Amino acid sequence: MKSAILSVGTELLFGQITNTNTVYLSQQLNLLGFDVMYHHTVGDNPGRLEEMIEMIFKDCDLILTTGGLGPTQDDLTKEIVCRAMEDELVLHRETMDKLETYFKKQNRVMTENNKKQAYMPSRAVVFDNDAGTAPGFALEHQGKTIICMPGPPREMTRMFQRRVLPYLEKKSESTIVYRMIRTFGIGESMLETKLLPLIDGQTDPTLATYAKEGECCLRIASKRATKEEAAKAVDEMLEKVKALIGEYIYSCDDEDLVTVVARKLMEKKLTLSSAESCTGGMFAAAMTGISGISQVFDRSLVTYSNEAKMQELGVREETLKAHGAVSEETAREMAEGLHRVSGSDICISVTGIAGPGGGSPEKPVGLVYIGAVYQGKTVCRKIQMRNVNRNWNRNYALLSMLDLINKLV
Amino acid sequence: MKSAILSVGTELLFGQITNTNTVYLSQQLNLLGFDVMYHHTVGDNPGRLEEMIEMIFKDCDLILTTGGLGPTQDDLTKEIVCRAMEDELVLHRETMDKLETYFKKQNRVMTENNKKQAYMPSRAVVFDNDAGTAPGFALEHQGKTIICMPGPPREMTRMFQRRVLPYLEKKSESTIVYRMIRTFGIGESMLETKLLPLIDGQTDPTLATYAKEGECCLRIASKRATKEEAAKAVDEMLEKVKALIGEYIYSCDDEDLVTVVARKLMEKKLTLSSAESCTGGMFAAAMTGISGISQVFDRSLVTYSNEAKMQELGVREETLKAHGAVSEETAREMAEGLHRVSGSDICISVTGIAGPGGGSPEKPVGLVYIGAVYQGKTVCRKIQMRNVNRNWNRNYALLSMLDLINKLV
Repeated sequence: MKSAILSVGTELLFGQITNTNTVYLSQQLNLLGFDVMYHHTVGDNPGRLEEMIEMIFKDCDLILTTGGLGPTQDDLTKEIVCRAMEDELVLHRETMDKLETYFKKQNRVMTENNKKQAYMPSRAVVFDNDAGTAPGFALEHQGKTIICMPGPPREMTRMFQRRVLPYLEKKSESTIVYRMIRTFGIGESMLETKLLPLIDGQTDPTLATYAKEGECCLRIASKRATKEEAAKAVDEMLEKVKALIGEYIYSCDDEDLVTVVARKLMEKKLTLSSAESCTGGMFAAAMTGISGISQVFDRSLVTYSNEAKMQELGVREETLKAHGAVSEETAREMAEGLHRVSGSDICISVTGIAGPGGGSPEKPVGLVYIGAVYQGKTVCRKIQMRNVNRNWNRNYALLSMLDLINKLV
Repeated sequence: MKSAILSVGTELLFGQITNTNTVYLSQQLNLLGFDVMYHHTVGDNPGRLEEMIEMIFKDCDLILTTGGLGPTQDDLTKEIVCRAMEDELVLHRETMDKLETYFKKQNRVMTENNKKQAYMPSRAVVFDNDAGTAPGFALEHQGKTIICMPGPPREMTRMFQRRVLPYLEKKSESTIVYRMIRTFGIGESMLETKLLPLIDGQTDPTLATYAKEGECCLRIASKRATKEEAAKAVDEMLEKVKALIGEYIYSCDDEDLVTVVARKLMEKKLTLSSAESCTGGMFAAAMTGISGISQVFDRSLVTYSNEAKMQELGVREETLKAHGAVSEETAREMAEGLHRVSGSDICISVTGIAGPGGGSPEKPVGLVYIGAVYQGKTVCRKIQMRNVNRNWNRNYALLSMLDLINKLV
């Protein structure tokens, strides 16, 4: 079925907000097996909105709109859609009751324009709004369907997941099930090369790779008559994928690396400390972004200067002089010094050249050393990443630390 | 002049990428005084692309397109635009020379499809691409103008700034000049209230406030016949704004707080160390995100556990027992302990409850204490922010630390 997404709102035309609704809805429609032919955005203008609906229906059967359902004068979507679909607005008792209860609870007087939200097209299937006051709806006419949802992304996505998705699934002749596999330590082209035997000549499930800030994702998707069939096909393909690139996979459920590592540490009750130079606190910031991490995360010593490395971690002046701050020896002494002061089960260190300055022919920008003390042993890793920019480089160093911990424990 | 933005690319319809080009171009067109009437996205499909151009030109005079200019078969924008504007593609010698030089430099063979990029509409004004191989162009026909730019945001924005902007400025009857003023420590509604005498009845310059992750921005914009007149009007209004809310302003040029603080420290050669608890390394990560900061940034001790606070910073056990880790006393001892070990000119500390757990009636989520040692004195600040979520709360604590430093030095 051919579909289009129509966003309504002058604020979009001013460039005041990014249209994330359209991205979300495009992904969802494609997964349902609908073809998305157009994205359109119009302002709060009745004439242009109506014209657009007419135009889309020339070659599409389904329109998803967002925005223009609120209580104010410039919220016109409902009125225009009614006109285009030859229906009229009538009082929707259930919605009115909910609105009245809502305003009573909030101790606020319901103004006249708020009542507007309780009027719905007479033939509409009304969709509750769990996260706001304006309901959405679906309206059909002569084989064409319009689904109208509120503009705020939080309201829209909840309504889509809980109300619109079940409605659309009935219309779709097929279902797509997919899993997002996340890997680290392998580039996109190498990933593709290794998976070639699975990709070549494969029509379903499909495999698609995505490069993503220093890591690579793989989407396995299957479009079948039922959810169960599709899920089974995806899982069977996942087993084949694991046989080829299993060592690089850290999540089969689209979780990020810090979440995976943090959960492991909390489950195994392993305490963690870090000694950071080039990441400058990013490792600690990522870790402490996880709620509940205080059970296992003890400290991070961000020793940016050489003095701090010597004072806080006991890195020896001779080591710094002989090998430099960015060296395996310094990484090792940082991790071991950290272990002496913190006693944490895992002590991880990092030192490197994030750029843009500070590189040399022997030690170019993007060179990073990571050290880790775990179960009485110290391991070190040298990483020479391609130099993208300071932020990317720092993030890649952070991911490399997480990857090492993930493999150690 | 009425305008529309037309994005070309099937990947947009799949929801694989967010259309940030449209946001950027909408802002730019509005600033130039053009009305943006529509955003449209179509796939790499010649028929629908041509139809869309026809439709837009019914009530617009200017179309900006992005995407579909590359060397591959599905890059069709140029061909379709030619047809719609009654022109034909001819070899553009200058572009061909550049392409040949480019491929020679890269030691790569130029394939036939790459030559496609050197063919341009015969009447086009060609725009160089500084960041890629596909040039853009402007083409006029019977009072209508199409401007075609490449899809990758980095190539598009550079081309727009350097080539398209001067071209469009000539077409615009007016210019908008604006300045983005950034404030911290004042909410959006209070900001608006304080500025009411300036906002009320004001038509030019206009003032608009924006809430932004814990801070507030104010846009002062003026639309005048010339750039000079508009800039003068904006600057005069800025002086009036400063008289009302000057104490909250930290940048008049849309710089973020960490950039402002880092520059100040580097200019004044003041060294800095931090002792972080609830921000968990975010302060250090933000600081070390600034290139060159190693001149002044010494270390951050991320003391997440109480043991770490005692061991690394000499916070006394009695203090933690009597007042708790989140208290003015602990913040003070953290800053003073940090000063003893680091000797940095400015030593800043933070301890607080980021949530979602860990709050109590006496110490609710969002309570933060900040300490700072500077010029022999210790100052402390208590902040009770509204509890939004863990990430927002941590970011607000970070901004409060930067704000304190900004006011001290």
